[in-house]
Amino acid sequence: MSILVVGSVAYDTVETPFGRAERVLGGSASFFSVAASFFAPVNLVAVVGDDFGEKEMAAFRGRGIDLEGLERTAGETFHWAGKYSFDLNARETIFTHLNVFEFFRPRIPDPYRRSEHVFLGNIHPALQRDVLDQVQAPLLVVCDTMNYWISRTPDELKETLRRVDVLLINDAEARELSGEWNMVRAARKIRAMGPSVLVVKKGEHGVLMFAEEGSFAAPAYPLEEVFDPTGAGDTFAGGFMGYLAAAGGRAEVDLRRAVIMGSTLASFCVEAFSLDRLVRLTRPEIDERYRLFKRLTHFEGI
Amino acid sequence: MSILVVGSVAYDTVETPFGRAERVLGGSASFFSVAASFFAPVNLVAVVGDDFGEKEMAAFRGRGIDLEGLERTAGETFHWAGKYSFDLNARETIFTHLNVFEFFRPRIPDPYRRSEHVFLGNIHPALQRDVLDQVQAPLLVVCDTMNYWISRTPDELKETLRRVDVLLINDAEARELSGEWNMVRAARKIRAMGPSVLVVKKGEHGVLMFAEEGSFAAPAYPLEEVFDPTGAGDTFAGGFMGYLAAAGGRAEVDLRRAVIMGSTLASFCVEAFSLDRLVRLTRPEIDERYRLFKRLTHFEGI
Repeated sequence: MSILVVGSVAYDTVETPFGRAERVLGGSASFFSVAASFFAPVNLVAVVGDDFGEKEMAAFRGRGIDLEGLERTAGETFHWAGKYSFDLNARETIFTHLNVFEFFRPRIPDPYRRSEHVFLGNIHPALQRDVLDQVQAPLLVVCDTMNYWISRTPDELKETLRRVDVLLINDAEARELSGEWNMVRAARKIRAMGPSVLVVKKGEHGVLMFAEEGSFAAPAYPLEEVFDPTGAGDTFAGGFMGYLAAAGGRAEVDLRRAVIMGSTLASFCVEAFSLDRLVRLTRPEIDERYRLFKRLTHFEGI
Repeated sequence: MSILVVGSVAYDTVETPFGRAERVLGGSASFFSVAASFFAPVNLVAVVGDDFGEKEMAAFRGRGIDLEGLERTAGETFHWAGKYSFDLNARETIFTHLNVFEFFRPRIPDPYRRSEHVFLGNIHPALQRDVLDQVQAPLLVVCDTMNYWISRTPDELKETLRRVDVLLINDAEARELSGEWNMVRAARKIRAMGPSVLVVKKGEHGVLMFAEEGSFAAPAYPLEEVFDPTGAGDTFAGGFMGYLAAAGGRAEVDLRRAVIMGSTLASFCVEAFSLDRLVRLTRPEIDERYRLFKRLTHFEGI
């Protein structure tokens, strides 16, 4: 049950109240791939420049991430720099150098075209559809997007959403996409656009999932040290989709487990800069924190 | 297992994006008492002016709320007016006329002094201690406070907290009281001040409880219509403490159920202005929504 992921592999320069990391591995597809790799084989499609080093490549090796689709082209790798507020709840972009990512046109290698699970990272919605045109009848299509595409290319995005099973966005994006402040109403409108499942990421406030069978609410894991939130959303997506791919279905019971698994992986991601914590992570640590989530949220009936 | 509540009974004038209510019943002790009355007898200590009408008194009648401690004095009843932002997440105070509440010195009637459960509403921390001096060895003392007392009378507040079992405050107050942004660290500092249990109310983002046995996270119930958030925190407190009084203990399993019961009551409170929804509420409706909370949060282990 392999997962195709299309997104960015990048350098991040990040400043948080706790420190600074210069030109470290980042990008949505990087976080997603490593998180998903704990559960299922991953086929990675992205582009890097000729400056992309073996040190960064090492993060992907030895964990079932196929790199045939990681295109290397002349030029510099996508580089994003940002600075977080003292409470980590706001961030300012210092610069976004798209570099080789500006001309990224995802080419799906032949062996990837039969991937049963497809994750469309945050790229132009027309390119997301272009990816779907290149794959054969996937079982599950999960899609991310951002406010940029919601406001600039709403019609393109809506055309893409008709072909998506699960949309994973944050609360501000859900409100902008639907034009509704109330999340229950926002979810109803968005689900009418195509995705049968909407997963709304609320950062430190957890996740809300809206599906045919009803709503599901999960908290974020209360951590004593949140070091760097960069990549938490993409890591959530990787854990979510990895779990679903391993489970081989999208029954309500598995969707809920997948939300907790995504939250579990994201809770590790924020403990260090870049993918530093994720690449050291073990499956027993993951399972133990999943159990702590159960302990955190469980209550008895009356 | 009766509950003594000391706090405000007031008139509220409220404007939300959905309408306006003029001089309707409000006040922390009002919301608390009606919510708690679904579970246990309530002894209400508060003060109103001679303008306080029979229409408002009717909200308290016929539901096991003892009114001997509701002092009536010459002058006008406490009147608060506020206006909510379009998203209900911020509110502006238009005016606060303390009126007779300014000189409120809680006198606990003799029959109330053996109340097993004591809720100290948001009044001067020295008055809260004065209440504790008037009661005989309560089983459980639950306390509310606000930023005003945290910043103006921190030493008085800390003296009170040494005699409190459960502190119920919102996230901003927890941060101000502890001087810590991170909630896990904030909770550790606050619990070291006295309360063995800290319940942090996060509005639409639910509740976090920190206790000896660990942390518990509960979402808010996702409502399609939030009409007026006024009183939701006090209603939470009433449901929380009402449930604990009925259960007769403070075991971890009951504390968790109490948080869900508080959240359940609060989810009804916000569906209408004032106590309009609470006074119409039935126990079967409460139990049904409690079950929906279970359905909202439940997931299977892996």
